[in-house]
Amino acid sequence: MAEPYRPLLTNAARPATFEVEAYNERGEMVPTSIAGEHPLTLYLDKREIVTLMTLGHAPEALAIGYLRNQHLADAIEAIAAVQVDWETDSVAVTTRKRAKGVARKLGKRTVTTGGGQGTVFGDLMDEIDKVKLREDVRLSDAQLFDLVEKVRKYETIYKQAGAVHGCALARTTGVAAAEIMLFIEDVGRHNAVDAIAGFMWLDAIDGSDKVFYTTGRLTSEMVIKCALMGIPFLVSRSGLTKMGYEVARRVGLTMLGRASGRHYLAFTGQQRLERTLPQATAFA
Amino acid sequence: MAEPYRPLLTNAARPATFEVEAYNERGEMVPTSIAGEHPLTLYLDKREIVTLMTLGHAPEALAIGYLRNQHLADAIEAIAAVQVDWETDSVAVTTRKRAKGVARKLGKRTVTTGGGQGTVFGDLMDEIDKVKLREDVRLSDAQLFDLVEKVRKYETIYKQAGAVHGCALARTTGVAAAEIMLFIEDVGRHNAVDAIAGFMWLDAIDGSDKVFYTTGRLTSEMVIKCALMGIPFLVSRSGLTKMGYEVARRVGLTMLGRASGRHYLAFTGQQRLERTLPQATAFA
Repeated sequence: MAEPYRPLLTNAARPATFEVEAYNERGEMVPTSIAGEHPLTLYLDKREIVTLMTLGHAPEALAIGYLRNQHLADAIEAIAAVQVDWETDSVAVTTRKRAKGVARKLGKRTVTTGGGQGTVFGDLMDEIDKVKLREDVRLSDAQLFDLVEKVRKYETIYKQAGAVHGCALARTTGVAAAEIMLFIEDVGRHNAVDAIAGFMWLDAIDGSDKVFYTTGRLTSEMVIKCALMGIPFLVSRSGLTKMGYEVARRVGLTMLGRASGRHYLAFTGQQRLERTLPQATAFA
Repeated sequence: MAEPYRPLLTNAARPATFEVEAYNERGEMVPTSIAGEHPLTLYLDKREIVTLMTLGHAPEALAIGYLRNQHLADAIEAIAAVQVDWETDSVAVTTRKRAKGVARKLGKRTVTTGGGQGTVFGDLMDEIDKVKLREDVRLSDAQLFDLVEKVRKYETIYKQAGAVHGCALARTTGVAAAEIMLFIEDVGRHNAVDAIAGFMWLDAIDGSDKVFYTTGRLTSEMVIKCALMGIPFLVSRSGLTKMGYEVARRVGLTMLGRASGRHYLAFTGQQRLERTLPQATAFA
């Protein structure tokens, strides 16, 4: 198999946590890890697009995924280079053919509920109706519980410093097994989603049989992004909003909330779920 | 005392929660409350400013506080009317003297970490250096613990549906007592902050001796908004980010994180804190 196309990339991750002095309720000094948060101004062919506040852990993938999810880039092949420079807190993305329609797309912004991004919401809702998610894929309870357990072990920055959201892209690898392919934490949960979208392009990963996990809430924007990546399963430990629910129903996504330990609530798309464990086991 | 000035206001709160069918890990149908999430397009003197995704619980205060925190309105007296119309998912704000400099301010946006708002970040950082928070105010551990306990009882939508953030404005009312003056939940935590800022203008509440509580993380934008409201105390049950920490230090805010039960971590501005409880009691 040919290597997937890769733009020219820097590799400029920032340290994820910093230590500060804090004082507890007894007046004792407690060295405490806090999450990094850095402004990163994104330039597309020298045009300033946006300043993202990010942990800075995967800035190149974040920039690519941001452009992907905002429909400012159509394919990874359109991107020639992604160059992060923390001296100037900037990332310069160069396209191979100057991106079109950027001004128009940037004209209409919605401030959404989620981790910070004014999205070209109207356009996204138009596109959502074109999405056809695969119907021939299944997720079993045993696979789900394995995924939830593996995510728990992954959350290193969260455990150290809190104040971050995590997202994972996973695939099933056996009747009771799932594998985390990508795991991203960021101070903004939409940054984490965007970085995953960026890595999926970079690594030529097809979403059509994958599971997307987020620690964050299932808002409309989260559901839309998942669907536009073609991913049929969306799992969260948190709750959902009414619009998240409505968009998931409209697009036929399988959406699970409150997933923790061996519990979950399936809100939409239950036809793709399989219960393979006996009830007693499910409750163990 | 004269009544504070009030613009003409609608009173158009939406229901906060909706019930949907969900299926648990045993395949049982569980009726589940989910948080509302509605688009609300804000027009300032007929100019479209932004579409907010909101729970819709306090849309008039949200619109006013958004304009306040984005520095698109200078005083409550500048606002003649705030009219919410859920038929068109819009809120029309009319000023008494057409707002100036709106186009310039809207030109420079930052996508921030927090609950969704592209803020006029550069301008806010300039203003932060002009802020002088009161130094003659104190918060004791006993008052703090009382506040944390009262917040816990307030969180009705969160408990029912999850997926929302809560913010409270509180004042101390005795050596070991605090009172919640305002409590707002919204799907976006910056909406909740903005709604509080709106109510503070509507009710002519001075922030200089108050405590601001948020369930959300202490990011730079949260710290900036608190400081610009003149509030010296910022309390969260969550963690903080590096930029939140740096801005709090720069402006001299008293910032407490991980506040839960009788525990907290004081990150900045400890000179305003008083430990009045014996250590053993503090740990009770």
